[in-house]
Amino acid sequence: MRNINVGIIGYGTVGCGVARALKEKRAYLSRRLGASINLVKVCDKDLKSRRPFRIDRRLLTKRPAEVINNPEIDIVVELIGGISPAREFILQAIKNKKHVITANKALLSEEKRRLFKAAQANGVELRFEASVGGGIPIIKALREGLVANRIMSIYAIINGTCNYILSEMTQKRIGFNAALEQAKKKGYAERNPALDIEGHDSAHKLAIMASMAYGIDVRPKDIYVEGISNISDDDIRYARGFGYVVKLLAIAKRIGRVLELRVHPTLVNRNHPLASVGSNFNAVFLDSDMLGEALFYGQGSGSAPSASAVVSDIVDVARNIINNAETKMPSIVYDKQADRIKRQKDFYTSYYIRFSAIDKPGVLSKISKILAQHKISIASVSQKVRRRERIVPIIMMTHDAKESALSNALKKIDGLDIIRRKSVVIRSEKDLE
Amino acid sequence: MRNINVGIIGYGTVGCGVARALKEKRAYLSRRLGASINLVKVCDKDLKSRRPFRIDRRLLTKRPAEVINNPEIDIVVELIGGISPAREFILQAIKNKKHVITANKALLSEEKRRLFKAAQANGVELRFEASVGGGIPIIKALREGLVANRIMSIYAIINGTCNYILSEMTQKRIGFNAALEQAKKKGYAERNPALDIEGHDSAHKLAIMASMAYGIDVRPKDIYVEGISNISDDDIRYARGFGYVVKLLAIAKRIGRVLELRVHPTLVNRNHPLASVGSNFNAVFLDSDMLGEALFYGQGSGSAPSASAVVSDIVDVARNIINNAETKMPSIVYDKQADRIKRQKDFYTSYYIRFSAIDKPGVLSKISKILAQHKISIASVSQKVRRRERIVPIIMMTHDAKESALSNALKKIDGLDIIRRKSVVIRSEKDLE
Repeated sequence: MRNINVGIIGYGTVGCGVARALKEKRAYLSRRLGASINLVKVCDKDLKSRRPFRIDRRLLTKRPAEVINNPEIDIVVELIGGISPAREFILQAIKNKKHVITANKALLSEEKRRLFKAAQANGVELRFEASVGGGIPIIKALREGLVANRIMSIYAIINGTCNYILSEMTQKRIGFNAALEQAKKKGYAERNPALDIEGHDSAHKLAIMASMAYGIDVRPKDIYVEGISNISDDDIRYARGFGYVVKLLAIAKRIGRVLELRVHPTLVNRNHPLASVGSNFNAVFLDSDMLGEALFYGQGSGSAPSASAVVSDIVDVARNIINNAETKMPSIVYDKQADRIKRQKDFYTSYYIRFSAIDKPGVLSKISKILAQHKISIASVSQKVRRRERIVPIIMMTHDAKESALSNALKKIDGLDIIRRKSVVIRSEKDLE
Repeated sequence: MRNINVGIIGYGTVGCGVARALKEKRAYLSRRLGASINLVKVCDKDLKSRRPFRIDRRLLTKRPAEVINNPEIDIVVELIGGISPAREFILQAIKNKKHVITANKALLSEEKRRLFKAAQANGVELRFEASVGGGIPIIKALREGLVANRIMSIYAIINGTCNYILSEMTQKRIGFNAALEQAKKKGYAERNPALDIEGHDSAHKLAIMASMAYGIDVRPKDIYVEGISNISDDDIRYARGFGYVVKLLAIAKRIGRVLELRVHPTLVNRNHPLASVGSNFNAVFLDSDMLGEALFYGQGSGSAPSASAVVSDIVDVARNIINNAETKMPSIVYDKQADRIKRQKDFYTSYYIRFSAIDKPGVLSKISKILAQHKISIASVSQKVRRRERIVPIIMMTHDAKESALSNALKKIDGLDIIRRKSVVIRSEKDLE
């Protein structure tokens, strides 16, 4: 039976999961593949920490070159994350004609064009199923299952930390900070959670999916990003009153040749399938010309789910190795006509707004006058009960409006002496009604 | 550029969708594949009926041999359905070394073992993404995306007709017959809907998925099947009172080496992701050892969604043709140790039961005495308001019980003179709480 040799760089949570799966499922995988997958080298700079899964010590090394330059190795699995030195490791492995599997969304989102070009030039594959949605086979779906489809829109919950925090705030009626602390305790948030809660991790993943869906090289800088740290439990409660839940969504839409790319807290109708995606789960909801609306839901992170994705890439690549396959399915096919990316000021959605006003007659009339001057029409409004400091929250849902109009109006409103805090805005998506 | 030639047998709804996609997406697909996919022959016994998509008349033929025995054709797409002559067409095409793509769940569920064997012996592929879940790439997920996973359980809504009917009954509070009429009007039910509403179509699809997931040749006769025609709008309303919705589920579970296979109306907790699958949508919810819980949701039928699945198979097979790939990913890897299939009498679930009793004191005591004698314990009970004929529905939820015990108890209860109609039973699944 043919042998396929795998080396791993980065023996952390996901690396352990991959090593465990390759060992425990050895016989099972070789029955499916008709070849034997061997883990021959595992590199990490820290070989002392205890791991949940132990491997033969002789496989371990601190030197990346023992994986990247190892003539025995067919497939290099990069799991260290971050831009550098992951980029250099991957490029060197590709140069050495090794196939590469990575979960590195930060690197891919920035440099995928260069990396895929290098892989193609060297006749090897670069796979990344685990980079988006953990174990959910969404990358394979975009590349192969939906190959015949033009994707119109993607609405994705792809950051487990944010979804856990928002779900806890919703269910337990606790504030953002309390929910974040819980997430940390449960291992759903990192010690420094900025990349997650500020929306950048979601943007990295959206850049990858949107590039595949639309055939252009979407980079994080192309995406408007807003995190969840401004959302209060009050907002979640008020939004529920209008029939919505609040989710951090990564959104990509194409209308004509204009592409819209955003990550921000979003109101989702409570009956929409995305609304029931709770805890740290991920879900990708997409609309395409042939399949129509579809949802892919599952664990977006964690050792075993991510390892499931990595191993599926290993098996795919192994099959191509056995077949000497020359035609691989390209993950991203860049179209010649690049799409234009919509600017933030041209976004056009409806809005939930929470104004913090002093409790005085005439406040609502002042606010609505400014909104009217900016051609923003109000769908509904409710003034909540008084609270400390005589500040009352005024909650408003608008009809669709242009973002430039809204931000100009808010600048004026927030400058009024009756307004005591910056107004909070959450966008609402018509498609998710 | 290399040419891949495709012939279609069966120019109905799905066939038109495939022809349309291959024509309209020709350039797009060839950019992705690096080869040109040509539709060279389309066979149907009826060439007169008007179709929503018209093709060059010279491609049309009434003679299947012009597709099956056509030396120009690489891939035969079978879309006529049913056992015979689809089986003969497929076997002949395989014998002629043609790859075959089919949406024929009835045939596959019965004869997949023989068909795959023939395909393997002739070095060709047999693909069937469109046979289950329409455009949802669930077959690819089971074969490739989840290749590293042991599937523990599958809970699937895979018949759009039934889901539409049950959804309408739930939302509009109408009876089964009224909902069925609506489904017919909307084109969601066939003129003779027995195969759908009696659960056999779901069983065909479950046989295919379970064979892939568990490595044994599951046939329709191995599956316990019960349709939805006994469900009344009352049952749906009462179930909602307990916090449930009623769905026709196809269920496969493995516990140890025992496999459980059933299709029947099932109570699903209203907060479970499957509960929000409405209208004619399909969804497959599965639990596996690495990925954990996952859901795949989308359009389970229709021209474009099914064509999306067929075209993804065409592209996959075309890539293998270009590569002269010898190692294909087998769709079903039969394990040597066959699983034992659990018999109906050994099913172990909780139950919703609606008794139709006359309105007399002591009725409940008689019923509960018999249940106690059979070791079935009652979780909750409610007696509904009187109705015509002095028959009152008594609604009961039991704790988990063995099906043999339940059916013996019901035989006795339904024989009592205080019971006026056969009791209605709906199973409830602990996993979907």
